[in-house]
Amino acid sequence: MLIHDMNAQECRDLLARLGVGRLACARDNQPYIIPVYFAYEPDRLYGFATIGRKIDWMRSNPLVCVEADEVRTHFEWQSVIVLGRYEEYTDTPEYKEPRMKAQSLMERRYLWWQTAYAANQVRSNRGQATPVFYCVHIEEITGHRASPDPTEIAAGFTSPSHMTE
Amino acid sequence: MLIHDMNAQECRDLLARLGVGRLACARDNQPYIIPVYFAYEPDRLYGFATIGRKIDWMRSNPLVCVEADEVRTHFEWQSVIVLGRYEEYTDTPEYKEPRMKAQSLMERRYLWWQTAYAANQVRSNRGQATPVFYCVHIEEITGHRASPDPTEIAAGFTSPSHMTE
Repeated sequence: MLIHDMNAQECRDLLARLGVGRLACARDNQPYIIPVYFAYEPDRLYGFATIGRKIDWMRSNPLVCVEADEVRTHFEWQSVIVLGRYEEYTDTPEYKEPRMKAQSLMERRYLWWQTAYAANQVRSNRGQATPVFYCVHIEEITGHRASPDPTEIAAGFTSPSHMTE
Repeated sequence: MLIHDMNAQECRDLLARLGVGRLACARDNQPYIIPVYFAYEPDRLYGFATIGRKIDWMRSNPLVCVEADEVRTHFEWQSVIVLGRYEEYTDTPEYKEPRMKAQSLMERRYLWWQTAYAANQVRSNRGQATPVFYCVHIEEITGHRASPDPTEIAAGFTSPSHMTE
């Protein structure tokens, strides 16, 4: 397996294309991960969540990490890691413009979430779910790409079926 | 979309079946995520890595989080989150037994990693990669499962093609 660093543009291209990843926040040095959908804009990621542990923790400590990857086989994958800073787009006049932008970008990419969110609101017994829009300011971005080497290709280690080993 | 809590056994079953996820560690409240392979045993996960930022950070702060999920569509997925504590199986007589067990479990599950590791050692210019076996003691485990509700099924929101929206 050959592992290469991805340059900043390659990392950004992957983030823009995927739009799905995992976000980690931390409190008292205890990290916590959640799967997230995001919309990429240069230097930031927009996200959406309902009130819960993740939002509580990011409000008290804005340092976060987002990881997104695309795995074809064990020997052929790309993974990008973003270190960044959480900023909440509160439902106040000050944040009206960025909040509308975030909402618009999320809607454009994820039409389904409105349905899911509405359904969740109506059908669950979780009480009133408050929508929270936020952005992650990208402060460091790194990525790695793996590709099979000739030996692995010859050994047939390039088929996705090897993912189930 | 209907979201249900998974009970502890369902969470453990999913971890045992998947063996792939993301681990977050933290230093000075800055979280950091990496994709990981793991082998599940009751109350712990075994993992393997080479020296790097992840290992440095876990040595200085053993609090970690592991997330593993299985996503079929936006409306049908399972996600498990483990909060745990890192313990390194150093290459010393004290850790000989657990280290061999961890290695054996990883080998049984991931035959390919030996090849990948060897190839990486030989072909990269990253210097000597030191193998590190570790375990994550599971201290809290939670999981959620989503399933489409009748409205979403009727609207055709249950096909994997919706993942690319």
